[in-house]
Amino acid sequence: VPSPPARGHNVTSQRAALCPTSTCPPPCRHCLVPQPISSLSPCRTGLVLVRNPHLDLMEEDILYHLDLGTKTHNLPAMFGDIKFVCVGGSPNRMRAFAQFMRRELGLAGAGEDVADICAGSDRYAMYRAGPVLSISHGMGIPSISIMLHELIKLLHHAKCRDVTIIRIGTSGGLGIEAGSVVITDMAVDSSFRPRFEQVVLDDVVVRSTELDKDLAEELLTCSRDIPDFPTLIGHTMCTYDFYEGQGRLDGALCSFSSEKKLDYLRRAYEAGVRNIEMESTAFAALCGLCGLKAAVVCVALLDRLQGDQIRASHEVLWEYQQRPQRLIAAFIRKRLGLVRTD
Amino acid sequence: VPSPPARGHNVTSQRAALCPTSTCPPPCRHCLVPQPISSLSPCRTGLVLVRNPHLDLMEEDILYHLDLGTKTHNLPAMFGDIKFVCVGGSPNRMRAFAQFMRRELGLAGAGEDVADICAGSDRYAMYRAGPVLSISHGMGIPSISIMLHELIKLLHHAKCRDVTIIRIGTSGGLGIEAGSVVITDMAVDSSFRPRFEQVVLDDVVVRSTELDKDLAEELLTCSRDIPDFPTLIGHTMCTYDFYEGQGRLDGALCSFSSEKKLDYLRRAYEAGVRNIEMESTAFAALCGLCGLKAAVVCVALLDRLQGDQIRASHEVLWEYQQRPQRLIAAFIRKRLGLVRTD
Repeated sequence: VPSPPARGHNVTSQRAALCPTSTCPPPCRHCLVPQPISSLSPCRTGLVLVRNPHLDLMEEDILYHLDLGTKTHNLPAMFGDIKFVCVGGSPNRMRAFAQFMRRELGLAGAGEDVADICAGSDRYAMYRAGPVLSISHGMGIPSISIMLHELIKLLHHAKCRDVTIIRIGTSGGLGIEAGSVVITDMAVDSSFRPRFEQVVLDDVVVRSTELDKDLAEELLTCSRDIPDFPTLIGHTMCTYDFYEGQGRLDGALCSFSSEKKLDYLRRAYEAGVRNIEMESTAFAALCGLCGLKAAVVCVALLDRLQGDQIRASHEVLWEYQQRPQRLIAAFIRKRLGLVRTD
Repeated sequence: VPSPPARGHNVTSQRAALCPTSTCPPPCRHCLVPQPISSLSPCRTGLVLVRNPHLDLMEEDILYHLDLGTKTHNLPAMFGDIKFVCVGGSPNRMRAFAQFMRRELGLAGAGEDVADICAGSDRYAMYRAGPVLSISHGMGIPSISIMLHELIKLLHHAKCRDVTIIRIGTSGGLGIEAGSVVITDMAVDSSFRPRFEQVVLDDVVVRSTELDKDLAEELLTCSRDIPDFPTLIGHTMCTYDFYEGQGRLDGALCSFSSEKKLDYLRRAYEAGVRNIEMESTAFAALCGLCGLKAAVVCVALLDRLQGDQIRASHEVLWEYQQRPQRLIAAFIRKRLGLVRTD
């Protein structure tokens, strides 16, 4: 094993520090930024923890990729009552989820089309269904990261409290049946480590990818009422690439054998990985630092130990993609005290 | 400067090797993959170099995110005559570019709407205007990387020859006027180095981010006929994040001062960086390895030495975004031997 060359960046680790407010007992997992931070909200108010002292000095905040802003929109009026944020890669899927949630929550206009709140930008799509916000994030860590920065500022400006955020996505399964739903207990990188590396100027900051354990258990409990597909808890591996980065043999480039690929995927399985996608580590790190209770719930479109290409029909894939939506709908109904009447 | 911790991956460098065919004089920049590769096309045939021996063994190739495939679509008939591929982040912008190119090339149906060839998937949008393909790639390296793998296989299956590929994007400028157009001579990472790190199973492979020098010069020459906006050649820095990764003070997280930010950006400027975006290193690396002549042409929406927020009106931003399109239209018209009559 050759030793890695000197990288251009210093690498520092963000460790848990004492909470600068007196409301949290140490060590507080929300207080990982070692720099002094002004106007830090207490962790137990339920408010979103925006960790940026510069924001207070800005007269206006333009959320460019969402086409929203603090001067052009009344964000507290538009979003102050949001309690659940669901995010996923595909704009069509997130629109369908908002329509589905309107029906599930028995809301007025349930049969009608939902309006894209970010219609002025085609980078992301955003829909509302009562207290539920449904937003697309595109594919990959950089894309979800832009959306999350602007979403977290939106929730902060809107003074939202006690928000739960869930990524409902698609993934490649690992040693599990296609169509299985995986609730992530830990997001890991391509070396199977629970960490996310963020470049900040000259430094690489290593962040925790811990997700909310109670929320994952609550979701697993909900899944027991939906017996027609398997749901399990496992680690989720997050990569920067779909082809070479996930050991696929069917990209434009491939320099490894089928045996090497399977050896890598089997080691991932042995490390506890049950599915592979491209957003979970950044999602867990950002939401965790900002005090949002977060979960990742993805359906597996195939078993990567069996192949690389996604061969199921559009109809089968569409039904698979509804599975995380059905689970999250059951969870939100339960949280809101709604009992199924149909 | 603390030394970097041991990483989970071995790091190897992809160096130029002798071309396995006799058609290229050594060293051939297209022959960076050290592993033996069967059925490698000669570099001078003008064909795309798919570097994956497994592809030949596949009965069918499903280009999942494009909703195209070798059994469901006649790719040579649909795409065999493509000579120019233009890619950019936003689907609306790439549709507008296809419509613009239809008018510029005097094609039939120039006033009509263009059909999305990938309508069955909402991951990317793809439009045709004669020999020009216009495709959206979303935001960030992972998103463009998925699209490029499938696009390169598409061009391979369609037996396209002598294809030129150009990314027409938006970016943050560095020490240049908002609205300036930057033609990239070198894509660099956040440490200002011309390299792209790709995880392949347990390894980190370091790839060259060289772009076609002659093409960049040809584009600069074309720009001299468009005097109403400044065009320049410079390095382009490619990051994995829009906020902390580009030294912005206006994200949900920020742990550095304005002085630290400006010090970093000024060092980037001194290293030759004139704009910052999120796709160029992966684009240059993948296109270079596959034998595509590639260029990156981005407009700067603001000068990052002056601020972080994109404050220009929709109208101004829309006009800025048309500038790379106008330059590329002039280039394509020139290549096709078309002379302006209006």
